[in-house]
Parts: sequence; C-alpha cells; structure tokens
Amino acid sequence: MHLVMIGDEFVDAGKVDSAYFDYGTFFGDGVYEVLRSYNGRLFALDEHLDRFKRSLAEVEIEGVDIETVRKRVLKAFEKFDKPNAKIYFHITRGSGTREHAAEGLTPRFFLTVSDIEAADAQKQTGISVITVPDTRWKRCDIKSLNLLPNVLAKRAAHKRGCDEAIFVNDTGFITEGSSSAFFGIFGRILHTSPLGANILPSITRKFVLELAAKVGLQIQTEQLKADEAAGADELLIAVSSKDIVPVVKFNEIQIANGKPGRYTKLLMKEFVELVKG
Amino acid sequence: MHLVMIGDEFVDAGKVDSAYFDYGTFFGDGVYEVLRSYNGRLFALDEHLDRFKRSLAEVEIEGVDIETVRKRVLKAFEKFDKPNAKIYFHITRGSGTREHAAEGLTPRFFLTVSDIEAADAQKQTGISVITVPDTRWKRCDIKSLNLLPNVLAKRAAHKRGCDEAIFVNDTGFITEGSSSAFFGIFGRILHTSPLGANILPSITRKFVLELAAKVGLQIQTEQLKADEAAGADELLIAVSSKDIVPVVKFNEIQIANGKPGRYTKLLMKEFVELVKG
Repeated sequence: MHLVMIGDEFVDAGKVDSAYFDYGTFFGDGVYEVLRSYNGRLFALDEHLDRFKRSLAEVEIEGVDIETVRKRVLKAFEKFDKPNAKIYFHITRGSGTREHAAEGLTPRFFLTVSDIEAADAQKQTGISVITVPDTRWKRCDIKSLNLLPNVLAKRAAHKRGCDEAIFVNDTGFITEGSSSAFFGIFGRILHTSPLGANILPSITRKFVLELAAKVGLQIQTEQLKADEAAGADELLIAVSSKDIVPVVKFNEIQIANGKPGRYTKLLMKEFVELVKG
Repeated sequence: MHLVMIGDEFVDAGKVDSAYFDYGTFFGDGVYEVLRSYNGRLFALDEHLDRFKRSLAEVEIEGVDIETVRKRVLKAFEKFDKPNAKIYFHITRGSGTREHAAEGLTPRFFLTVSDIEAADAQKQTGISVITVPDTRWKRCDIKSLNLLPNVLAKRAAHKRGCDEAIFVNDTGFITEGSSSAFFGIFGRILHTSPLGANILPSITRKFVLELAAKVGLQIQTEQLKADEAAGADELLIAVSSKDIVPVVKFNEIQIANGKPGRYTKLLMKEFVELVKG
C-alpha cells in the first residue's frame, strides 16, 4: 500500500501518472540519444540507433526492438515537419515501486522533437571553456541518464561565463566535455582522447576524425594534458546538436589569436558538405 | 516548439504531465532520502533532514525550505497511519525543456509512504553478498538520484543469488554496499570505511558506531580489503529501511560458522532499544 505526495498534495496512488514512478527519476535508470536533422534529412540515424542499442544492452534493459525506435523517430520527425530539428529520446527501465533491482518492468519510451538551437554565433566567434574535475562514473561510454556531474560541470562553466566545461581526470588529462567531445590541433596534428570506458563514443567525433584526413590533418588519439591544451594552435568541441564549435578561450587563456582557427574552419566547411548527404 | 511522443503516441506538449520533463529523469538531477518509523515513531528524522539539506546545497538546488519538507514528511506519516512505515522523498531541480544548466526552475517534491518490508528472516539467518567494482561517481557523499551503478550492482548480486553488492574500489578496498554501509568485526574491533567523498554519510552507520562502544567493540574507521573481509569474524550491513543485517556469506565464502555473529546480534538488540526512543 502506497501513499503518494506531490508537492503539498496527497494524490491517489492509483491516479498518479506512471511517470512519477519512472526508474529514470528514481535511479537515472535509462539511456538516451540526441540527434538532429539538416535541411530535412536526419543525420546519422543509424549510428545513433546502434549506440542506443549498445547502451540498452550495457544497462540490461531488455525487450526493446530497435526498429520500433527507428520508426518512432522517423514518424515524429515527419510529424514535426521542419527541416532543422533536434530529436531527443530515452528509454528507462520502467515504472513501478522503487527497488534497486526490480524485475519484469516494461521499458518506457519518451521522445521530444524541437527546433534546433542556432549555433551560428558560436561557430563564428568560438566559445570559452573551463576545465573541471571529472567526477563522473566509470562507464561514460554508456549514454545513460546519470548526468548530474555533467549538469554540475555545465553550471560551473556558466557561472564563469563559459559555454562548456571540459573534464580533467585525476592524472591531469582531459577526457571530454560535459556534453561534447574535445579536440586540440597542434600544427597539422589533431588530438583527441582515445575511446574507452571513460569516454562517450561520440558520433560527431567519429565524423570529425573522418573529415580530418580530408583537410590534411593527422590524427593522434592520445590523452591531452589540460596545460598542453591551453597551448594548442586550435581547439574545438563536437556535439550532435551543433556539430563543430571552435574553442577560443581555455581556462581564460586565449587560444592563438582568439579566433576560430584555419583547420577548424575547414572542418566546419567539410561538415556542411557531409550533412548534405 | 515541441512535439512529444510517449511510447507510440503523440501527446499535446501542453497536456503532458510535467513529470515527463522532470530533470530527475533527464539528468538524475535531484537528491533523496529514505527513512522509516518504528512502532509509530519516525526514526532519525532530524538526521535525514540535515543530510537532505546538505545534498541539496551540494547540487545547488536552491529555494527549498527544509522545515516545509519536515512538515510534509510528518503530514504524510500521520495520514498513512501505520506504526511501521518507510518514507521515500526526493526533490529534483524542476521540470522544463531539457538543457544541462537551466536557470529558474522550480524544485519538485515527491514522496511516498509504504509498508516497511519485513527483514526478520534476513536478520535471523543473515544474507549473502558479492563484491563488484565501484564504478560510481566521485561524490557518493551526496545522496543523489544518479544511482545507475547501484542498480547494476544490485542486479549483479541478485543474479548470483545474493542480497547485496559491496563496492570495491580500484585499489582493492571496500567502500560500501550498493544501498548500505558495510562493516567487518575482527575480534573486538569493528571496521568500516572512513567517511569521504566516496562514501554516503549513512545515518544507520552513525548509530551502529555509537552502539559499538555499548557492546564492547572498538572502532576502526579504516578501509578494508575485500580479501580481508572474507576472513572476518563477523560481517554486517546497515541500511535505514532494515537497520542492521548480518552478512554470513561473502563472495561465496562462509563467514565464521555461517550464522549471525555474537556482536552483530548484540548490535541488533541495542538497535531495537535505540529505536524505542
């Protein structure tokens, strides 16, 4: 028997929306994806669905048909009917009485489509970032709803007038941004963290690495020290909703001449071509 | 503009229950408490409210009056009107369009009261536990809704026929259980992890340490190696909903004679007295 209180009000337990008993809320027990469209085309849907499927498997949420997810995404995108859209979706383990390891719950699907936020200004002038300690759990390769450290990191960045927080681990190495992959360019070498349990296999990162060769960059997937990053010729982040965004200030240190760098601009240009499909 | 899909259905964004846009679900962006009553008396309410207040401050959820929370807890307990009840409550940052660092959200309070699960059998025969790698974030002193590693640990324990999973860090030391504090008794010495950023300041742990002196135990708050624990004279866990539970099997190794130990029984007995108030 349950008594439920929402704010100051008692609510009949039988009439409470099941969302209040969502394991996403009780435990962050779910996984998600964010993707976008460019000019009427969803970008990298297969890659996002593949990653989603892997995340589901890693957290042992079973019984989800990924083709059903694909259909829902396509249906929602069609219904939204705008060329540039951002799609967010998650699946949680289910809804029920709170217990850590409940069995037999029905996974819950939730999706929103919204207008894509304009990133033109950020792309033109670049953004400022700060570093924060990487306090996240050890399975950041899973795109889970356990994002409190990311929230706290982003809040810290905003307080310092920055747009993104870059995580630095205990040994002084950069892992990735609070909601982005991170890259440094030194001469003709593009540095980014190698994939591992502590790094989200970013889909935009993958495309950046593919485009790097096209613009004449060599790739080095090696950890980068925070103080090395401050001395880079160029810095950039990659995130699905905005693809590539130049970073022009790192912990209040201006990067090169404080403007988006040559290779970053070339990569952004290639990305524009890429998303035309 | 938003389009919302729940399961297979499109839902008018204006009519979706705000719970679907809860930051607790999107990010696990909230904190919680669980407490219980014994024979009509709430146990350690002040301690739980103090910890809750601290958790709120640590995750920067502002504008919550802790006395309002206290009143709600008391009101719900009164309405439930059973002597032995379990109260769960959380506050999340709010509900709104998903963005990592939104400002100006209104914190959301949710509470359930339910019958306490019987722990008599577990207390009489003891439980089995396994160890799992501690993959949690680095601020486990905050009682946050980011509990996916705890869920996965508990699931792993159940799969092995165990009731609890005990986290072991990278250097082989035990931190705590997936939903409990952990203790080992060696001779007349009670071992438990020292409090720190990686340990929840468990309220039941605090009372166990207070009662330890009464039953003739010395306290050593030092990290314990997993293989040392297997050789203990007694093992036990502490959790608000069940207070003290003996552990009689650790990674399939029987502890002493496989029955709840002498000091553990004394501690349980003292706890019964303590909760009489």
